[in-house]
Amino acid sequence: KGKNVIFVAGLGDIGLDTSKELLTRELKNLVILDVRENTEGLCALKEICPETKVTFIKYDVTVPLDESKKVLKKIFDKLKTVDILINGAGILDDHKIEATIAVNYTGLVNTTTAIMEFWDKRCGGPGGIICNIGSVTGFNAIYQVPVYSGSKAAVVNFTSSLAKLAGITGVTAYSVNPGITRTTLVQKFNSWLDVEPDVAELLLEHPTQSTKECAENFVKAIEKNKNGGLW
Amino acid sequence: KGKNVIFVAGLGDIGLDTSKELLTRELKNLVILDVRENTEGLCALKEICPETKVTFIKYDVTVPLDESKKVLKKIFDKLKTVDILINGAGILDDHKIEATIAVNYTGLVNTTTAIMEFWDKRCGGPGGIICNIGSVTGFNAIYQVPVYSGSKAAVVNFTSSLAKLAGITGVTAYSVNPGITRTTLVQKFNSWLDVEPDVAELLLEHPTQSTKECAENFVKAIEKNKNGGLW
Repeated sequence: KGKNVIFVAGLGDIGLDTSKELLTRELKNLVILDVRENTEGLCALKEICPETKVTFIKYDVTVPLDESKKVLKKIFDKLKTVDILINGAGILDDHKIEATIAVNYTGLVNTTTAIMEFWDKRCGGPGGIICNIGSVTGFNAIYQVPVYSGSKAAVVNFTSSLAKLAGITGVTAYSVNPGITRTTLVQKFNSWLDVEPDVAELLLEHPTQSTKECAENFVKAIEKNKNGGLW
Repeated sequence: KGKNVIFVAGLGDIGLDTSKELLTRELKNLVILDVRENTEGLCALKEICPETKVTFIKYDVTVPLDESKKVLKKIFDKLKTVDILINGAGILDDHKIEATIAVNYTGLVNTTTAIMEFWDKRCGGPGGIICNIGSVTGFNAIYQVPVYSGSKAAVVNFTSSLAKLAGITGVTAYSVNPGITRTTLVQKFNSWLDVEPDVAELLLEHPTQSTKECAENFVKAIEKNKNGGLW
């Protein structure tokens, strides 16, 4: 309530439902940074809560660190303070090695590093909260997509370190690690070197959750706000 | 004995001592791929075992996948068969986010992916063995270098997946995860956003091992050759 939230990939599969859920919590501002331009989704979000200002800025997490800082500077200039950064950009396609790692890990690290300039208490900043979207594959790989799974293990490990640095930086962190969620991501995706052409079908035979269920639990985790938490 | 081994970063800190140790095992060929041109180190290696042919090819793991394939093709054309690929390239400098991830994770994935073209049993290949150098920080982060630690968690997770794919690809894999080793890497290195300027000094207060000790255990792990092993 009354918070300013930046949500990277807030129009994505899990993102959009999580944004909807967040908007039932009377935020002050929800700034969505996304590479997608989902006008329809954005309009739907804007109608949920009249007290929350929803803004969209096109943002590709694979841009250099300095570009990320510029985007964030604009937001901080306008809002003055930001309470939470949610890093949710992710792709699942093990034919695309560079892109998978650049989006899922490097992009998340760069966006996190960029916001520290505004939050780090060593620079007089007020601190802040980082919520990173990992994946259960960071703990227990889907071995048919080893590149993706590895990138998520990196996110989990990175986030744990951020949490341990909170005493120094004033910035707390936790990760939300969804299990198999019925997103468009998992409807069809490439395994590494096609080791398992039917990986999507096989995966969906497991118990899965809807994006809405995922979103509800996601926002519960955000409300718990536990430094170092693994959800 | 009688094996053909490709060693990426075989002239590095841990690499050079591990190469020396390997050369006491009467290999047929040791092909060192390294971004460094350490003529002195290479000459010393060539003198250890007259029965082993030691060759050097300059190789930067951050080149695109196709370049890696070209380098490997030359080696396979010459040697016909390769038994083991050791992926040992790594940097430790959390001021360099892109480079850390590109070398430690993306480069290792690309080199691994490239060699599958020659080894994958689905393409009529003979299989092979991949030995990836991770780090204990993949399990238990040095939180002052979260970017590095995360990249190593990715390596550990990725390698576990490779091991699970061995039935499909014919290629087995394990990771060797050294603890703190007294390399030039740890004499001085940058923490993320300088959260701990004295991280190198603090780290070296912990029990450490020499590169020689590390190398001896490394080669023991290679001799055990356990698919899915974590050493």
